[in-house]
Amino acid sequence: VLLGIDWGTTNVRGFWLDAEGAVVDRRCAPVGLRQIPAGGWPTAFDRLFGDWVAADARVPVLLSGMVGSRHGWSEAPYLACPATFAELAARLHPIPGTRHHIIPGLLHDLAQGIPDVIRGEETQLAGLAEPRPAVVCLPGTHSKWVHCEPPHIRHFQTYMTGELFDVLSHHSILAQTAAEGDFDEHAFRDGVTRSADSGGLLHHLFGVRGLRLFDRLAGPSQSAYLSGLLIGHEWRAALSGMPRTGRVVVVGTDALTSRYAAVGRAFGIDCVAADGELAAARGLWQIARLAGLIPS
Amino acid sequence: VLLGIDWGTTNVRGFWLDAEGAVVDRRCAPVGLRQIPAGGWPTAFDRLFGDWVAADARVPVLLSGMVGSRHGWSEAPYLACPATFAELAARLHPIPGTRHHIIPGLLHDLAQGIPDVIRGEETQLAGLAEPRPAVVCLPGTHSKWVHCEPPHIRHFQTYMTGELFDVLSHHSILAQTAAEGDFDEHAFRDGVTRSADSGGLLHHLFGVRGLRLFDRLAGPSQSAYLSGLLIGHEWRAALSGMPRTGRVVVVGTDALTSRYAAVGRAFGIDCVAADGELAAARGLWQIARLAGLIPS
Repeated sequence: VLLGIDWGTTNVRGFWLDAEGAVVDRRCAPVGLRQIPAGGWPTAFDRLFGDWVAADARVPVLLSGMVGSRHGWSEAPYLACPATFAELAARLHPIPGTRHHIIPGLLHDLAQGIPDVIRGEETQLAGLAEPRPAVVCLPGTHSKWVHCEPPHIRHFQTYMTGELFDVLSHHSILAQTAAEGDFDEHAFRDGVTRSADSGGLLHHLFGVRGLRLFDRLAGPSQSAYLSGLLIGHEWRAALSGMPRTGRVVVVGTDALTSRYAAVGRAFGIDCVAADGELAAARGLWQIARLAGLIPS
Repeated sequence: VLLGIDWGTTNVRGFWLDAEGAVVDRRCAPVGLRQIPAGGWPTAFDRLFGDWVAADARVPVLLSGMVGSRHGWSEAPYLACPATFAELAARLHPIPGTRHHIIPGLLHDLAQGIPDVIRGEETQLAGLAEPRPAVVCLPGTHSKWVHCEPPHIRHFQTYMTGELFDVLSHHSILAQTAAEGDFDEHAFRDGVTRSADSGGLLHHLFGVRGLRLFDRLAGPSQSAYLSGLLIGHEWRAALSGMPRTGRVVVVGTDALTSRYAAVGRAFGIDCVAADGELAAARGLWQIARLAGLIPS
């Protein structure tokens, strides 16, 4: 058995996994790196998972995500790309004063000297079903696009798509005061279409304002349009930087993967969705096995 | 004589102009559309300029900018591009209950149905020295790039550059807590250089975070780098949508025009800076003459 924990910036997800890697129990809480004060990690862990560990004091505990960052529980140095899952497993970071381990994040250091980083997504990659895909998209606050050449994770690129959507929706002239209705699929597609026009993202963003000023975009539809515009720009940039392969696997929540897959299909790409939480649980178990924390 | 007022979103600038168009007196205040409650415009005007008008009750008053928008003093309908300054002068909007007039803004309605708008910049264009330039850049919260074919203002494009810089600097992971030092010209140029890389703006934004994580960009330099990155993206998009002419006139404050001109020169474009406030004052006077508000 294994206690696997995906501990991110805003959320924590714990999985109690049996000998075959099946999720026997799970526990989620909105208690991420941002909610935990310095030095508060042991207390937070005990509150969240103390009863699980008390029931089996010898259970191995493996963690992934921002818990291993500079401001996390204990800093797990990045592993440089290209890297294999076996290398990740060989470089687990022990948390001082505990029997727990953290899976290191990955570092991609471009030739031009712009570093890019991943923490947590490398573990989700390890949990994807075989055969391992060549291109994986993990949408979110900071969307990751990963290029794999099994057994290696070759390189990746991060896009600030989700965060830009959030700050524009809350703090710019595109902020929405009205309560939103249902997600407007048509407006979403219009936003995606717009991303293919000339003028660039900075101009397209002001265009959202122009559409609203002349009532060519209804207030409740603006959010969907903006989402399509930003995701469209992300896809276009990602496709130009990635090998043209037959298939892109999109890993995340249903809501996000369905939006991303719709855009990919609009661009003529075969897209397959995978559940991000299940991938995290499976990945924690896979890496625990490779590391010998549990019998393989 | 003329009382010309450039009344924008966050500031108001009033100019007392003599018969030759020279600025005899000027008055600025951080009292823009955002600071004035509905119905509060007459009071604000009296507080700001009441003594000037009392000194010469028959002085014509001409206004430009967001004062003519839907949430301004009185809505002055947009004039569609292409438009001439004479047409702007012929379409002055009288403010009900007063003897004042507002210069209408311009509307550019692209074939694909994404409207773009200007309010105030059309007046600055009228104030530029002859010969009238073909391409004018007016940087700011919402940067405007205008293509002129005298006597027509042919079309224009707006870029949300300044606003994106502000929201990212205050509300994203790129927010700066440390006080800034001097503007880092080197970091600014690095940001401009970065804008030419593949990957797109969404990826380049996360790269700022990567550089900071590995101390390849000092905290106080981040702001200049981000500025260069965004202005670089704006220039690249604007150049691809505008005719390649010999010269771009950049209109605004010294700080902004010098940054924009530096980027243009890095891209091989001959740039000339023009003072935005003086252009506004001259433009108000020019349009007042065309409209017959003052003797020509």
